[in-house]
Amino acid sequence: MGPLTLAELSEHLRNEGLPNEVRGDGERTITGCATLDAASEGQITFLANVKYRDRVSSTKASAIIMQDDPTLDAKIPQIICSDPYLALTLAIVKIHGHRSHPQWGMHAGAHVDSTATIGHNPNIAPGVTICAGASIGDNATIYPGVYIGPNVTIGDDVVLSPNIAIHQGCKLGHRVMIHAGTVIGEDGLGYAPVGQKWLKIPQAGSVEIGDDVEIGANCTIDRGTLGTTKIGSGSKFSNLICIGHGCEIGDDCMFVAQVGLAGSVTVGRHVTIAGQAGIVGHLSIGDNAQVLAQAGVNSSVKPGEAVLGSPAVPVAEARRQMVAVLKLPEMRNQLRQMEKEIASLKEALAESKANG
Amino acid sequence: MGPLTLAELSEHLRNEGLPNEVRGDGERTITGCATLDAASEGQITFLANVKYRDRVSSTKASAIIMQDDPTLDAKIPQIICSDPYLALTLAIVKIHGHRSHPQWGMHAGAHVDSTATIGHNPNIAPGVTICAGASIGDNATIYPGVYIGPNVTIGDDVVLSPNIAIHQGCKLGHRVMIHAGTVIGEDGLGYAPVGQKWLKIPQAGSVEIGDDVEIGANCTIDRGTLGTTKIGSGSKFSNLICIGHGCEIGDDCMFVAQVGLAGSVTVGRHVTIAGQAGIVGHLSIGDNAQVLAQAGVNSSVKPGEAVLGSPAVPVAEARRQMVAVLKLPEMRNQLRQMEKEIASLKEALAESKANG
Amino acid sequence: MGPLTLAELSEHLRNEGLPNEVRGDGERTITGCATLDAASEGQITFLANVKYRDRVSSTKASAIIMQDDPTLDAKIPQIICSDPYLALTLAIVKIHGHRSHPQWGMHAGAHVDSTATIGHNPNIAPGVTICAGASIGDNATIYPGVYIGPNVTIGDDVVLSPNIAIHQGCKLGHRVMIHAGTVIGEDGLGYAPVGQKWLKIPQAGSVEIGDDVEIGANCTIDRGTLGTTKIGSGSKFSNLICIGHGCEIGDDCMFVAQVGLAGSVTVGRHVTIAGQAGIVGHLSIGDNAQVLAQAGVNSSVKPGEAVLGSPAVPVAEARRQMVAVLKLPEMRNQLRQMEKEIASLKEALAESKANG
Repeated sequence: MGPLTLAELSEHLRNEGLPNEVRGDGERTITGCATLDAASEGQITFLANVKYRDRVSSTKASAIIMQDDPTLDAKIPQIICSDPYLALTLAIVKIHGHRSHPQWGMHAGAHVDSTATIGHNPNIAPGVTICAGASIGDNATIYPGVYIGPNVTIGDDVVLSPNIAIHQGCKLGHRVMIHAGTVIGEDGLGYAPVGQKWLKIPQAGSVEIGDDVEIGANCTIDRGTLGTTKIGSGSKFSNLICIGHGCEIGDDCMFVAQVGLAGSVTVGRHVTIAGQAGIVGHLSIGDNAQVLAQAGVNSSVKPGEAVLGSPAVPVAEARRQMVAVLKLPEMRNQLRQMEKEIASLKEALAESKANG
Repeated sequence: MGPLTLAELSEHLRNEGLPNEVRGDGERTITGCATLDAASEGQITFLANVKYRDRVSSTKASAIIMQDDPTLDAKIPQIICSDPYLALTLAIVKIHGHRSHPQWGMHAGAHVDSTATIGHNPNIAPGVTICAGASIGDNATIYPGVYIGPNVTIGDDVVLSPNIAIHQGCKLGHRVMIHAGTVIGEDGLGYAPVGQKWLKIPQAGSVEIGDDVEIGANCTIDRGTLGTTKIGSGSKFSNLICIGHGCEIGDDCMFVAQVGLAGSVTVGRHVTIAGQAGIVGHLSIGDNAQVLAQAGVNSSVKPGEAVLGSPAVPVAEARRQMVAVLKLPEMRNQLRQMEKEIASLKEALAESKANG
Repeated sequence: MGPLTLAELSEHLRNEGLPNEVRGDGERTITGCATLDAASEGQITFLANVKYRDRVSSTKASAIIMQDDPTLDAKIPQIICSDPYLALTLAIVKIHGHRSHPQWGMHAGAHVDSTATIGHNPNIAPGVTICAGASIGDNATIYPGVYIGPNVTIGDDVVLSPNIAIHQGCKLGHRVMIHAGTVIGEDGLGYAPVGQKWLKIPQAGSVEIGDDVEIGANCTIDRGTLGTTKIGSGSKFSNLICIGHGCEIGDDCMFVAQVGLAGSVTVGRHVTIAGQAGIVGHLSIGDNAQVLAQAGVNSSVKPGEAVLGSPAVPVAEARRQMVAVLKLPEMRNQLRQMEKEIASLKEALAESKANG
């Protein structure tokens, strides 16, 4: 972490597998990264979206990461590469680094059951509770107020932010990061109707979360009723997301904030679900599908398909509908006009007959 | 809890008030319950939805709970009864049991005010805070990080999961179960406009929650401004639900995740509100009404009525609208076509006149 | 706080800047405030919405706050003023007062780093964690389970409810009130796609919250990726609200529950966003704009404009669309009818020609 020259950054990107070329003064020192508008002296900026092309001439940055573009005169030194957004990400990691965490070691104010096992190099805060039979890997960072239930299994290198609850028997993989207030493995909404009363169905299942999963703040992941709610490796969730009991979510998915999945939804690999979208229970969402913002999905989605609207339909169809709805007031006028024209045609025809 | 024979399960169901009959080998041992697809040797499955009828022939379960159906040859031993879903629920309770809780007794790491009263057989974790004048019944299970404010009153046999906050003066009945991170009795959004500023209205009311209520994780239940926000006995809420100040919710309601009620909504008995639906303030939702997923309710709903859409309308009307919206692009084509036809009719008529 | 006579209340309102006049017995003692329907003997009620005018004759209140209205015979003593809602608010503050807080002093069960600085008159509960370099002003009330990260800066007179997390480097102004379970400064959803994998972008920015901000329970405010997420002074948020990284929200805004803003949204001054509305990233919402409930905003909103629908459009247009959608089934019938009429016109014309 910290400042480096443009040439050193270029070499770092190359070492990370990203071919690139410096144009201009490679000895310039780069102290930070910023957007085109926000950047100041000493910072490097980037152009990843042509929409912001006009801002390149006015940026105060000292260097820019961009694709090769003979038509754009950047005026400042450049790192030219095929994927400026990835290059920027690698630059941020190199220069700013990830958020660091307070260091507690194994704090005496944590309540750890004597039958729990904890790996090497723990960083466990006061006010953490770890129950009987729980197993936690190496290098765990566990913030204050985290509750880890009986027989929970957690891999290496996890970060659990404050006030998370992980209920009994749930399993988390390696390098999982969960943000504050998220609840894993609470009972889902399962009841049998008995007259007008509701009889609780035991929620006897569990939750399994793969490696490299990141889950945002204040999410809720219900445990399975009898089986297991699963979140595949590499999947990333934002905040306030609700996953119903028995859902199975594939690897490398991206769920935006406030998404809700009812129970037993199956989601394939690399699916994107945008903000505030909801999915009815027992449906299936295919690999690489996209569910757009606020969609209400009430039928299964094919692999690769993008859906929008409530009820959700393929996005092209949804856009046609939305345009048509925009035109509705105009259509009503047309209808009224046509009714008049038909009436006068009738009249004219009757007249023409009478005169015939 | 634990395994039993099919005949023993049958007798247990009868004892619970559910008449039933064993067909086939009643001595078969049942070790668990599972869905038709997931069941394996030793487990009992069930058929409650005709949609899954085809799966009966391929299940690996050792027995099945189903209705009498002469046309379906189940091949495995059966428990025949009128309500297989209820029978399954009772079987799960009997064989798997409800989730058990860690046992803390009255943990020394809890902060309990000397003026608080706590009933027999407490199970109170470290990191719990119980303030002055609070009163808690017998057999309370209170997980770490729960905050119970001054003069809160709580009945017997409650389960409060980690990191719940219950603010001063709120009342909870018997057998209430609340999941992690839920907040009861925070201030609602109440301000008087003073020019472009907002003047906070004291939220001086309270919250009352009846018996046998279950509330999911990370919900928020605002206290009344002057009166009391009420949740009737037997009502069940999923996660991430928001109840505005002064709402009065009847008995035996079922609210699915991410539902939001603005302030002063009155909800009758046995009302279902599906996921992500929202209800505008000061409305009334009648007994046994149903609000479907993502509905936006902006006028009161009659008893027994089901509403859908945003703005919500009776479901039959909403479905007609949705079908019509699906047909909109086609309607626009029809309109264009008809305009042409009217134009050519006009022309033909003019011609006919000219020729007349 | 506590009871006072109507004349004393009148004087208090005058002292607070609200001219008013007592009509009837000014010596009547007022013990509390309540709505027209809920009020009982000894309480004062109010009429702020003409919709409830009919209820004045039946209220059991001992006095009423209302505008001058010669056509309404209130029968009980009155405080006549131009803004009854503001008068009521001031009366509630005077008689009921704001919620008080448990008093912990500087509790020994809080974990406060030796390098943190805390102002005069702290009220800090057990189970609070305050990390290195944090700075907290005078008169702070901090409930149990609150986590305050390294180098967080907090002004005077704040109230932080239970189980809040405020991550490192975030800044809060004076008189900020945050309700339970809210998370400030967690990482937002930032990844660079690498094939089908997601590479985490460090979230190296911060959050700044102005003076007099109130934030509801279980909200999430992402820290900026490189810059700062900002919430302007005097803004008020309800519960379960999600603010994406890099948003900049102006002063005196009002956000209702379950609102979601994606990243880098700019919101002006005094903007109202109603419940469950969502705003796409990088948009701009002008001063005094209104986003109505459940709106899905996918293009920027002009100052003073009110938008509704998903996708959101100006409210008059949205209402025209909604009416037109309500009329759609009827429009389809009209279309069918017109097609028949056109067909019979064609026929008649052909006949007329043949006969011509």
